[in-house]
Amino acid sequence: MDALEAASEPDSFVWIGLYEPTPEEFEAVRVELGLHELAVEDAIAAHQRPKLEVYDEDLFVVLKTARYNDATETVEYAEIQLFIGANYVVTVRHGEASALADVRVKIEKDLERIRCGPMAVLHAVVDHVVDDYAPVVAGLDNDMAEVEDAVFDANRPRGLDPTQRIFKLKREVLDLHRNTEPFLEPLARLASGALPGAHPELTTYFRDVEDHLTRVVGAAAHFRTLLSDALDANLAIVTVRQNDDMRTISAWLAIGGFPTVVGAVYGMNFDNMPELFWEYGYFIVLAVMLAVCFLLYRRFKKVGWL
Amino acid sequence: MDALEAASEPDSFVWIGLYEPTPEEFEAVRVELGLHELAVEDAIAAHQRPKLEVYDEDLFVVLKTARYNDATETVEYAEIQLFIGANYVVTVRHGEASALADVRVKIEKDLERIRCGPMAVLHAVVDHVVDDYAPVVAGLDNDMAEVEDAVFDANRPRGLDPTQRIFKLKREVLDLHRNTEPFLEPLARLASGALPGAHPELTTYFRDVEDHLTRVVGAAAHFRTLLSDALDANLAIVTVRQNDDMRTISAWLAIGGFPTVVGAVYGMNFDNMPELFWEYGYFIVLAVMLAVCFLLYRRFKKVGWL
Amino acid sequence: MDALEAASEPDSFVWIGLYEPTPEEFEAVRVELGLHELAVEDAIAAHQRPKLEVYDEDLFVVLKTARYNDATETVEYAEIQLFIGANYVVTVRHGEASALADVRVKIEKDLERIRCGPMAVLHAVVDHVVDDYAPVVAGLDNDMAEVEDAVFDANRPRGLDPTQRIFKLKREVLDLHRNTEPFLEPLARLASGALPGAHPELTTYFRDVEDHLTRVVGAAAHFRTLLSDALDANLAIVTVRQNDDMRTISAWLAIGGFPTVVGAVYGMNFDNMPELFWEYGYFIVLAVMLAVCFLLYRRFKKVGWL
Amino acid sequence: MDALEAASEPDSFVWIGLYEPTPEEFEAVRVELGLHELAVEDAIAAHQRPKLEVYDEDLFVVLKTARYNDATETVEYAEIQLFIGANYVVTVRHGEASALADVRVKIEKDLERIRCGPMAVLHAVVDHVVDDYAPVVAGLDNDMAEVEDAVFDANRPRGLDPTQRIFKLKREVLDLHRNTEPFLEPLARLASGALPGAHPELTTYFRDVEDHLTRVVGAAAHFRTLLSDALDANLAIVTVRQNDDMRTISAWLAIGGFPTVVGAVYGMNFDNMPELFWEYGYFIVLAVMLAVCFLLYRRFKKVGWL
Amino acid sequence: MDALEAASEPDSFVWIGLYEPTPEEFEAVRVELGLHELAVEDAIAAHQRPKLEVYDEDLFVVLKTARYNDATETVEYAEIQLFIGANYVVTVRHGEASALADVRVKIEKDLERIRCGPMAVLHAVVDHVVDDYAPVVAGLDNDMAEVEDAVFDANRPRGLDPTQRIFKLKREVLDLHRNTEPFLEPLARLASGALPGAHPELTTYFRDVEDHLTRVVGAAAHFRTLLSDALDANLAIVTVRQNDDMRTISAWLAIGGFPTVVGAVYGMNFDNMPELFWEYGYFIVLAVMLAVCFLLYRRFKKVGWL
Repeated sequence: MDALEAASEPDSFVWIGLYEPTPEEFEAVRVELGLHELAVEDAIAAHQRPKLEVYDEDLFVVLKTARYNDATETVEYAEIQLFIGANYVVTVRHGEASALADVRVKIEKDLERIRCGPMAVLHAVVDHVVDDYAPVVAGLDNDMAEVEDAVFDANRPRGLDPTQRIFKLKREVLDLHRNTEPFLEPLARLASGALPGAHPELTTYFRDVEDHLTRVVGAAAHFRTLLSDALDANLAIVTVRQNDDMRTISAWLAIGGFPTVVGAVYGMNFDNMPELFWEYGYFIVLAVMLAVCFLLYRRFKKVGWL
Repeated sequence: MDALEAASEPDSFVWIGLYEPTPEEFEAVRVELGLHELAVEDAIAAHQRPKLEVYDEDLFVVLKTARYNDATETVEYAEIQLFIGANYVVTVRHGEASALADVRVKIEKDLERIRCGPMAVLHAVVDHVVDDYAPVVAGLDNDMAEVEDAVFDANRPRGLDPTQRIFKLKREVLDLHRNTEPFLEPLARLASGALPGAHPELTTYFRDVEDHLTRVVGAAAHFRTLLSDALDANLAIVTVRQNDDMRTISAWLAIGGFPTVVGAVYGMNFDNMPELFWEYGYFIVLAVMLAVCFLLYRRFKKVGWL
Repeated sequence: MDALEAASEPDSFVWIGLYEPTPEEFEAVRVELGLHELAVEDAIAAHQRPKLEVYDEDLFVVLKTARYNDATETVEYAEIQLFIGANYVVTVRHGEASALADVRVKIEKDLERIRCGPMAVLHAVVDHVVDDYAPVVAGLDNDMAEVEDAVFDANRPRGLDPTQRIFKLKREVLDLHRNTEPFLEPLARLASGALPGAHPELTTYFRDVEDHLTRVVGAAAHFRTLLSDALDANLAIVTVRQNDDMRTISAWLAIGGFPTVVGAVYGMNFDNMPELFWEYGYFIVLAVMLAVCFLLYRRFKKVGWL
Repeated sequence: MDALEAASEPDSFVWIGLYEPTPEEFEAVRVELGLHELAVEDAIAAHQRPKLEVYDEDLFVVLKTARYNDATETVEYAEIQLFIGANYVVTVRHGEASALADVRVKIEKDLERIRCGPMAVLHAVVDHVVDDYAPVVAGLDNDMAEVEDAVFDANRPRGLDPTQRIFKLKREVLDLHRNTEPFLEPLARLASGALPGAHPELTTYFRDVEDHLTRVVGAAAHFRTLLSDALDANLAIVTVRQNDDMRTISAWLAIGGFPTVVGAVYGMNFDNMPELFWEYGYFIVLAVMLAVCFLLYRRFKKVGWL
Repeated sequence: MDALEAASEPDSFVWIGLYEPTPEEFEAVRVELGLHELAVEDAIAAHQRPKLEVYDEDLFVVLKTARYNDATETVEYAEIQLFIGANYVVTVRHGEASALADVRVKIEKDLERIRCGPMAVLHAVVDHVVDDYAPVVAGLDNDMAEVEDAVFDANRPRGLDPTQRIFKLKREVLDLHRNTEPFLEPLARLASGALPGAHPELTTYFRDVEDHLTRVVGAAAHFRTLLSDALDANLAIVTVRQNDDMRTISAWLAIGGFPTVVGAVYGMNFDNMPELFWEYGYFIVLAVMLAVCFLLYRRFKKVGWL
């Protein structure tokens, strides 16, 4: 807690990092820094949506970190919460969020930036989290391409209908949207420089992050539209295939049907059926059968039913 | 009515709780407190949408409480109405709304909060109602998962098409949206602290409730999109199955069709059909039949029609 | 026209009611009251969308009245137009609009309200018209329930496909939206109290009407979404039924097909077919046929094709 | 060009009408009146979207005129451009736009209106163009009704699928929207009276035109929704018909299939088939065949497959 | 770098053009002109979305150039970035962007325009890029027409289903939207004349470009709607064709089925089948067969199944 005292000196601040704190662990920090009761409730509960709350002169920020899991083709989310005061930063991580050690090292080296105070830390963390969305978008983009190939694969094997995969991917995309889009508005507020603790030098940097996040949100919306179309396209393709198959089947049925009908007629047991007694009756009928079958075959080939 | 007199003392207020009052019961309260005629009409009628009305210096608030019924997979709604004046709170419950006794106990203990006046009661009730949406969302989320499993169940039994369930669930989700979304705007007004009777300490708390409600409304929108997709996915899956089935059927038709055609030909009664008199004619034909059937079977197996 | 003179006295106004006036009839009123040329054009033409126009110090209001016709399951619309000046109200009715006699009686009794001037009449008429939307919504709600039952009726008789009914109902719902939604904005203006002739006591009452109209418009939007889903659900259900039917048919085809193939084989006329001369050949074949048919039947029953 | 000099006198203006001018023809006018370079580029090129541009103290307005061609069921668009200065109006027509001679005659008679200056001409032209949208909407409305009848025609002849017509009509409706909707915003600006050259007496008249255009745009949006539904409804209806047809076909297949199976069995050539030698064997079998066929027929009739 | 010194004189500026610069090449420019660190990061990375950033008194603009590739029916995008300062313009091109040499020549000739400073260059480049969208829209419009023809081609050959093409085209259209729409907002800001370095004479020119871009974005939205409809229309058309085909097939099945049933009956080997021994039995049966087949044919023809 000496650090906190040190932080009370002008132009200095302390950064406290916690990982899934117990209520007791958190209580010490809360009392020392006078964090707002509501923010603390949120910090222990996790499962927030991204947001930025202003409590008097302090900020409470919730961020969602994302990681693309290639094996399961899912995106895994974790949560980082930040309490930003005049002379302190508290970061609380929930789930397998990307470690913030890199961010810390980076910001400690950047002396000029660190002089902007706790807001510089906020920027560094937000920038880090938003940059980590890029591989997620790339991973989903790759899945999109695979799904599309599957939809338009002419020789798609039985049982490999891409519907379920499209649906799953759509859910991933919707989740990405849900976990990123609500932070656009807080970033706009940060970029406007109107929040307590704002530093004029940082507004441009926050606007840059906003621009990156806009691209991520735009990509999610883009994927969403394409996946809806992929679902429709898949249905259309299966319907077309159904029609093609039915035509093929019907053509063969017609080809096989003619000899059957003729066979049924000459298989009747009437006494007086003159053709039956012709010497070449059978051969004539056989020839007619084959000729008709061949003509039907050619005809169906021509109109594209075979 | 002594309570009302007590309430006229400075810094004190009275809380009157009514359950489905008759017009007569309500009249006494109305006259004593000078409630607005229009709000009273609403209070007796029920079946309002959530809203907040300002009548001069008083507020009239309508809230929808929700409870998930697991047996019927439906959400049941009830209504709480609040009249908030400078020194009184009147709560009117319609239907099986969650009892407010817990809220009362809780707020009576929180002395600091109660000093904020009737608005503290409003916050406590709204907070309570919005917190109760969480299990509803969880229940619907669970139904979503079941519906999804049903859609993608490869061995779905006959008669277990999930279409009707999807439709029903969609209606539940739309109802949840209708009963929650309109209260976002009143909450924003309460959080802005610009309404009569607003207390600066409470704005943060109302913003917290607004954040919770935003999550509920977001979940409803999310479910809605997924259910539309589930309907589409289900259609696609049935169409694919239809095509798979038709291919299977056609393959067997072809396999059974060949011997039938041959049988029809050699079942003709022509006198002069030399093959009929060959010693091994029948066996040759039989062997050809079986061979062709086997080849067809292998071929269909290979292209995935069987 | 004496009434008009009377109306020129302070604090009094005249209410003139017209039903589908001829241009000549209207001219007299127009000249006397100095109505705006454009409003007059509209008043004679009818078939307006709901709107509120401000001409200098006067208002021109167009309202659509609605009535649900249970026999045809349609909603019938008529039009009421109001000219509101400082000391006159002119109501013009087109079509079978609900008569305004009730409104007149009611407002004449309410002395306090009538002192608010012509705007009180406007409120009374608007309130009356909007209240009349409630049975329309109820009627459409009832149709919705019937359509839904028809969609999910497992034993729907041939020719009773609900598609056309869904489509018709959707058109009714869209019409309701078209005839009600545009009046929300005028009501908001009336509730804001910023229009000429506004009376502070009436703003609350106009907001109450706005709230009612919001519910009607919300219901129309709700119906619209559900009808789109019903159309999709119906398609899915027919597609599923198509698949179920095809499976049933195919199963019977297979059961009937086996004896046919066997019959075709043993119906061949080869001289040397040893089985034909076995004493129990026929009975063996017959037994095999029946056994296979029974096994097929059991199998199809088990996998749900029958 | 004397007219132009005359126009430089106070309270007078000149109206120049051009039809598809060559750049040279236009140059003379441009130089004389000092039209803005960009507006001139647009005036020669045509194929603009409707818009209103303010160049210093002058207005440049682009309007789309529409005409419904009943024979082709298409809407044909032409373009009118107006340059509005303090003391001149230049109208440029491209394509078979409705001639403006009527407008000229009308406005020249209306002395009071013409005193409002060039803006009165703008109003007259815009009013004329927007009024000409009414028959277009009526024409499309008529097509809508025909399309709808075609969709729900139970005995629709082969090859008369309305899909293409729906699609074409939708494109017409989208075009109507594209050519009318962008002018709503300019009309709102004209009605606000805030543009250079605005005359207080005209704002009401522009608002009236805006109201008419709103109705046209609303009708286009309405048609668009209904056409999407018509496409969906048509698909549903064809799918239902497909199912009905398949049931009919299957029923007849079953009825014809039974005698075939029996015939195949008794067509076998076994030596020892006792039934064959019964005196009434054939008649019994025939009777059974007919009875079964009749029972099947009745059963299918009952369940609605026939 | 002398140019840069020259640029420091009042009323003069320098234009530096770079093509995919290495970080080292860029560093020299950056240091000399004091470009903002963030803009420089973007300039080297490319793959930005169109945007305009204000860094103190300087602008950073990202533009997407588009070129329609007729062979692959795809649109290829490249990137132009501009740094606009008080006395310099730096253009950075990435990918096969349209060369800016033409723009340079054009602007150098237009002395009056060049006096507006670096913003005149920005306008010239933006105008050039937006004008280049026109052939892209034309190319996509052409593809739209081809796709539409393919959808409604009654004799569409097997394997030529337009679904994939519609999907691909939709993706192109979405990409066009993504690469153009975000620049509307920056153009509106440029047209408002409120940005640093804005010149009053240029605002009208920027508004003109905005108008052109609005048309491009509108066309993309229009294509998008039509392509969704085309996908739906295609599905409907295939479903209708499926039904027509099934009817044709069923009709022929019925025509061929009758003789088969009769043949099966008279092919039974009962001893006592009187008809078999009638002298004209066979001929009568044959005649009945042909007559029934002909009647069936006529009937199916009439109801449109053939």
